[in-house]
Amino acid sequence: MHPFTKRFHDSVSALGEEKLIAALRRWLGRASPKSPFGIGDDCAVLPPVRGPQLITVDPVIYGRHFDDSVPARAVGAKLLKRNLSDLAAMGGRPTAAVLALTLDARISTAWLEGFYRGLATCARQYGVPVVGGDIAQADGILAASLTLLGAATGPRVLTRAGARLGDWIFVTGKLGGSLTCGHHFKFKPRLAEGAWLARRAEVRAMMDVSDGLAKDLRALTPSGTVAALTASALPCRAGANVGAALADGEDYELVFAVAARADLAALRRAWRRAFPRTRLSCIGRFTRTMPAGALDPGSYHGYEHLR
Amino acid sequence: MHPFTKRFHDSVSALGEEKLIAALRRWLGRASPKSPFGIGDDCAVLPPVRGPQLITVDPVIYGRHFDDSVPARAVGAKLLKRNLSDLAAMGGRPTAAVLALTLDARISTAWLEGFYRGLATCARQYGVPVVGGDIAQADGILAASLTLLGAATGPRVLTRAGARLGDWIFVTGKLGGSLTCGHHFKFKPRLAEGAWLARRAEVRAMMDVSDGLAKDLRALTPSGTVAALTASALPCRAGANVGAALADGEDYELVFAVAARADLAALRRAWRRAFPRTRLSCIGRFTRTMPAGALDPGSYHGYEHLR
Repeated sequence: MHPFTKRFHDSVSALGEEKLIAALRRWLGRASPKSPFGIGDDCAVLPPVRGPQLITVDPVIYGRHFDDSVPARAVGAKLLKRNLSDLAAMGGRPTAAVLALTLDARISTAWLEGFYRGLATCARQYGVPVVGGDIAQADGILAASLTLLGAATGPRVLTRAGARLGDWIFVTGKLGGSLTCGHHFKFKPRLAEGAWLARRAEVRAMMDVSDGLAKDLRALTPSGTVAALTASALPCRAGANVGAALADGEDYELVFAVAARADLAALRRAWRRAFPRTRLSCIGRFTRTMPAGALDPGSYHGYEHLR
Repeated sequence: MHPFTKRFHDSVSALGEEKLIAALRRWLGRASPKSPFGIGDDCAVLPPVRGPQLITVDPVIYGRHFDDSVPARAVGAKLLKRNLSDLAAMGGRPTAAVLALTLDARISTAWLEGFYRGLATCARQYGVPVVGGDIAQADGILAASLTLLGAATGPRVLTRAGARLGDWIFVTGKLGGSLTCGHHFKFKPRLAEGAWLARRAEVRAMMDVSDGLAKDLRALTPSGTVAALTASALPCRAGANVGAALADGEDYELVFAVAARADLAALRRAWRRAFPRTRLSCIGRFTRTMPAGALDPGSYHGYEHLR
């Protein structure tokens, strides 16, 4: 759906600020708690949380993260799911979200309703109250940025740091071709899987795959080592080859390091019991030098921002 | 300073993603905690906080909240201060900030450095760690949105709800003409004043003045009452008349309701001891009908978004 309209009466500008805010609270429905725990005051008040919290922020921008081929509802859901994927990557669960919207006055009310309803459905599904936000006007743009707060689901949060020489590299699901097959907005954030992995002592470091495995793996690779991959072990999506699996991005899968001495068979068995329908692949190892025949992700490039 | 550059070598695009992220961490300096408590992982980890938290989000957009006449450093500071003002309005103190930046690839690195250094200086001044963020590219735009987390400074947070018939209306500082005199980026958020007022039992409701007193007062006015103002009591900034004081906006002062039976003289004395250099004005009262001679803010309009 094209977000812009040429008819003034169909635009958010015709609605005006007060009616727009009333409308978006209606569209958010039960995803939007009552003030002061939601929209309607200078700040939203959040109930106390025990232990450390997590925070992340990610946007969706028209022309970059979505286009006319993506339904408005799917754009709203994608915005939240991108952020949920970041929480999943640390083994967290969501507690609250705030939304900053920047839009042209000619955005159609119908598009915006779809966006908010899609966001609200996804927010209810994952139990995320949308507690606040801001709407600002700017010519020629449609961008939304969501800040997501979360909490740990267990005794530890998994970070990108912690992998060691010899550790195995695992990845969930399949990689590559996300943009062509619509996975980039249809994916399910790996929250349950991330929480489960954070409780497994043999898992040492984790992150989500968003800019392409080749690029993202750099952040997981311990200094003084290389990520030696096995090309045949890469779980390529139908229609995607090894290059696509390494470089396409927007996979929203989890990549993690498993201790060298871990019982991989036990890990696999436990995984299959917990997530029988989700593929788990051991795709390589952190080694001192690149062995002959290994796949070097350093020869592929992921998505580079600001280019 | 004009944020766009025509010379590729001076642009953020020439820097590229990796060097840009390294640069902005350098520019943020001590305002940016080490990972996982800051930038560098999928989420930032926040230390535990006791009691309820506060959250708010506000942007600055080129062409709307600032132009070439505002120094880049002042833009960065303004972004944080706008959000601090929302925290002040509830009697809160800041605990952490995350920043979402959307920018054209032709933004000059020099401008961005100024922006981040201004933000960092302000963040250190108010003790706000900048724990995370995101940078996304979009043509023709320069926008930054900051989400601020906070905590209560005392036993209660002050909301907009709570004023009653007969309550007095007070405002801090002076109003009007903010855009012409540069107050809109030079202001100091009323954090100390907000925290002080939240501890005074006679203060029933509070908010900050950002869209103009006439418009903002509507949110503070109890249903079934009107805000009857005294024109001569309005603290107009030099060069601003009553209309400007009511409608200009971007004052970032606090407006609050004081219980009808409160000892106003005692409140004023205590205020002068605590804040000898900040004006405190009783500007009117919530009444059932508009008395003859009273100033009706309903006949003025504040800043309407999306028009």
